[in-house]
Amino acid sequence: MVLVMTDTTREDIPEFGSEFREKLTDLFRWRRDVRRFRNDPLTDDVLDYLLQLASLAPSVGNSQPWRFVKVEDAFRRKSMRDIFEAANLDALNDYAGEHAKLYAQLKLDGLDQAPVQLAAFVDKETVLGRGLGRKTMPETLHYSVVAAINILWLAARAHGVGVGWVSIINPEQVIELLDVPKDWALVAYLCVGYPQEEHIDPELERAGWQERVDMKKFVFKR
Amino acid sequence: MVLVMTDTTREDIPEFGSEFREKLTDLFRWRRDVRRFRNDPLTDDVLDYLLQLASLAPSVGNSQPWRFVKVEDAFRRKSMRDIFEAANLDALNDYAGEHAKLYAQLKLDGLDQAPVQLAAFVDKETVLGRGLGRKTMPETLHYSVVAAINILWLAARAHGVGVGWVSIINPEQVIELLDVPKDWALVAYLCVGYPQEEHIDPELERAGWQERVDMKKFVFKR
Repeated sequence: MVLVMTDTTREDIPEFGSEFREKLTDLFRWRRDVRRFRNDPLTDDVLDYLLQLASLAPSVGNSQPWRFVKVEDAFRRKSMRDIFEAANLDALNDYAGEHAKLYAQLKLDGLDQAPVQLAAFVDKETVLGRGLGRKTMPETLHYSVVAAINILWLAARAHGVGVGWVSIINPEQVIELLDVPKDWALVAYLCVGYPQEEHIDPELERAGWQERVDMKKFVFKR
Repeated sequence: MVLVMTDTTREDIPEFGSEFREKLTDLFRWRRDVRRFRNDPLTDDVLDYLLQLASLAPSVGNSQPWRFVKVEDAFRRKSMRDIFEAANLDALNDYAGEHAKLYAQLKLDGLDQAPVQLAAFVDKETVLGRGLGRKTMPETLHYSVVAAINILWLAARAHGVGVGWVSIINPEQVIELLDVPKDWALVAYLCVGYPQEEHIDPELERAGWQERVDMKKFVFKR
């Protein structure tokens, strides 16, 4: 893979033409939540490059509250699978009949295969940004971390790398397992690696769990 | 403006080459939180197209919990400015000395000029997705709306359109003003329009409020 390194000296306002816009739409359409990964490792330089791009995300008050933890320890990775399995079994018990049958067949994580696992935290007490913009809506600090994850996700897909967001986990257990500062809260646990397959439709749509709905139904006027 | 309409029949897996990746990096670098808008209107077809792209965002369980409200009523738009002014004055009172002086000089919203105002809500009780993926981390529903906003933001910049996220507001006042269903929570209030200026650096950095920090300081191993 050839990384396109950022030329930080280039200050010309870029032009985004129709060709780029069309490809960008393709990127949005083909970004998937990946749960099936190939065995090939993801090199540190690729991951670090994607994280650099993620740092270009917007953050409330420019607080940059994102904290990423690469989870490499074998025991911790095994424990993450246990944490997922327990939460997934508990979630399965909320469904009955056909829904339970379908839920049990879904593959909802890539923890067994993903070469890279990345926990994304928010530093709730960061002094960066001096609290600007988050007095009445403190959750914007968490949203800033989500923004970084979204940039990472799109950049990854453009480099042929898949990202899967695992949320069926008890966040307090993850915090304890990863031994992070007490002011951090878990935002996401990400699996990262090269995908086995590429799809234009979400896996949950393909599996018959939930179809997409026309955005027009979600836009209102006041 | 020429909109690049999505060809939904095209199913070939796209190739993202180095030229696209470089432009994508430019897009991440030049996306800004815009507070200074030109007077030109933004046509409905542009906005609706950007919202269509936003609906390609990931959402937990494919729940698509995003609900967008175009705020067009003159009284409501005036009231939004009042809501911002009150929260901004209250925030200013938290600072003292040089910080207070600097805060008072910052332009933190574009409510006075933006041709389009868009409130983004999360439907906390949506049945879509049947609760999948959000039992232990219900906040992922809100994060899904943030993902849609991030796609909208990037797509907008690629089309020369600026977006500014206003968070210095009391969300309960906005919910009451916009008379939305009781199960909705406010995620963001967005100003949308053509920007007066383009910048590669965040306004808060330029103004001396908060510099960017090297991402390397925010990446850890466990």
